[in-house]
Amino acid sequence: MDECKVIIMGFGAVGQGVADALFMKKELIKEKTGFEVKVVAAADSSSSAISAEGLDEKLLVDTKKNEGKLSAYPEFGSDKNGAEILDAVEYDCLIEATPTNIVDAEPALSLTFKAFEQGKDVVTSNKGHLALKFKDVVSAAEKAGVEFKYEASVGGSMPIINFVKDTLSSCDIKSINGILNGTTNYILSRMTSEGSDYEDILKESQELGIAETDPTQDVEGIDAACKTVILANSLLGIDATYSDVKVEGISKITSEAIELANKDDYLIKLISEVSPDNLQVSPRLVKKGSSYDVSGTLNMATVKTDLADEVSVIGLGAGSLETASAMLTDLISILKNKN
Amino acid sequence: MDECKVIIMGFGAVGQGVADALFMKKELIKEKTGFEVKVVAAADSSSSAISAEGLDEKLLVDTKKNEGKLSAYPEFGSDKNGAEILDAVEYDCLIEATPTNIVDAEPALSLTFKAFEQGKDVVTSNKGHLALKFKDVVSAAEKAGVEFKYEASVGGSMPIINFVKDTLSSCDIKSINGILNGTTNYILSRMTSEGSDYEDILKESQELGIAETDPTQDVEGIDAACKTVILANSLLGIDATYSDVKVEGISKITSEAIELANKDDYLIKLISEVSPDNLQVSPRLVKKGSSYDVSGTLNMATVKTDLADEVSVIGLGAGSLETASAMLTDLISILKNKN
Repeated sequence: MDECKVIIMGFGAVGQGVADALFMKKELIKEKTGFEVKVVAAADSSSSAISAEGLDEKLLVDTKKNEGKLSAYPEFGSDKNGAEILDAVEYDCLIEATPTNIVDAEPALSLTFKAFEQGKDVVTSNKGHLALKFKDVVSAAEKAGVEFKYEASVGGSMPIINFVKDTLSSCDIKSINGILNGTTNYILSRMTSEGSDYEDILKESQELGIAETDPTQDVEGIDAACKTVILANSLLGIDATYSDVKVEGISKITSEAIELANKDDYLIKLISEVSPDNLQVSPRLVKKGSSYDVSGTLNMATVKTDLADEVSVIGLGAGSLETASAMLTDLISILKNKN
Repeated sequence: MDECKVIIMGFGAVGQGVADALFMKKELIKEKTGFEVKVVAAADSSSSAISAEGLDEKLLVDTKKNEGKLSAYPEFGSDKNGAEILDAVEYDCLIEATPTNIVDAEPALSLTFKAFEQGKDVVTSNKGHLALKFKDVVSAAEKAGVEFKYEASVGGSMPIINFVKDTLSSCDIKSINGILNGTTNYILSRMTSEGSDYEDILKESQELGIAETDPTQDVEGIDAACKTVILANSLLGIDATYSDVKVEGISKITSEAIELANKDDYLIKLISEVSPDNLQVSPRLVKKGSSYDVSGTLNMATVKTDLADEVSVIGLGAGSLETASAMLTDLISILKNKN
């Protein structure tokens, strides 16, 4: 039995989801790829647990939940963090789930380059380095001859990157339009169904944990713009960066505007548009009953192709296990290619 | 440059679509796989064109359209047909697009087994052999050590088989529910939007070429039942055959029933249900605005998974180039695996 040693870097909701999902899916991964996956290190923002013999995924999650720090992991807790962990233990694949940083993409950028230099494959859920420096990161992986996969960076459990690359591989992609941020879709959906004001629904969403305490990244369209530029680069071959996207968020949408649209059978949605002529995130009117009419935290994307006309996907845009499932699919794909 | 020699068997709408799509996509296939695809034979129901040096895809389509028979192809026309073509010329992959036969699955069944025995890969759009003898056909391919791919058999250009196998590979699949027949969806959509009777819309659909002269396969749910059992076998690992599916078509749906549903915000759709407990095709009430609310000839499917919750796809259920695009995607996937 071949072994695949992974490091989980970042141990928030997504990193913990990866640990949980790996625990559930060891047998399935073995069956599909012939590889036994072993977690040899996991790191939160200030500490870690490291063992060449492999760590217990459940105990990692319990330690983080109960003690707040991975350094509290029995016997193998460590104060090492960040890049030094990549030198501390032998590994095959870096599962990179640190928070997105849209200013300088750190620590994801340095960690990813370091893993490439070490000849290791990388699976990421991070948007920062992809939105700011897509070409640099992808070329570095190519030069290093390693695999770099990032399905989880867009759409949570809604497959879009592998979906287009693998299942629409015969088609040229003309454009992609979609709803790529679950939080704003939830807020707009509830404003529509309840006729409430933006501020009220935002507050409730924060209480429910759907919107963050600082909701700027979501409500101002920054998160959706990152995803927009990732799709532009990866699926349409457009050499663009975050600043090339025209961005307008939803914080100025009033309940009156939504009601007015509603009267004529329209909804207001935060739409991402990806085409060679236009990279844009903005509130748009969409017809009720159209493929854009998805509510709650759902994401959707409609891919316009030459041969297959329009194909759409819909799925949950967030969630810890959901996002982890996308990262596991990437890992399975990497391992299959090793056979 | 490696070469991949293909035979296109069956030269109706789908076979011609494959020839057209191959003509358009030679460069793309070369780029993605490193293989140059050459059509060494194409066959309609009674004749063929055969040349080891390769045939001109455009001329194949023009010959069929203008002369009605591939034997009229300049210089390389032939009276050979069916299985004897597989002996007449060296090839690497059989692109099998003969009409679906739900009685004995011929000629697809014999052609496919013969190709396997010759050690050749097969891409099919056919439903007959898969619906009647899924396990036999798939095991024969495995034993022969060849690739057998059949995305185009379900959903036209809506990816569902590769979609689940490739982009949801980390998930266990609990169930799949969907609209898998475009003709009936078109008829029901128009009955709903116009309040017209079944017979009137069926007649118009026949005039438009959306329904066949003998519409039985579509309107009685037979086509959808074939697709249901293919999904059951290929994606849920259920060892079932066509006769295991409970089938009810749409020919008894009245405009009154549709209106009654409409008043309570429901639509009537022909729904395929695939789960370990239930293989069924039947008219069902679905909520307006739900993911089942797709109109015209669209197909859709909602896949219920353990990790990624529910993921849906929507795409055109038919069309010549659209179905061909699914076959080309399968061919590209086969060729990529040869590298």
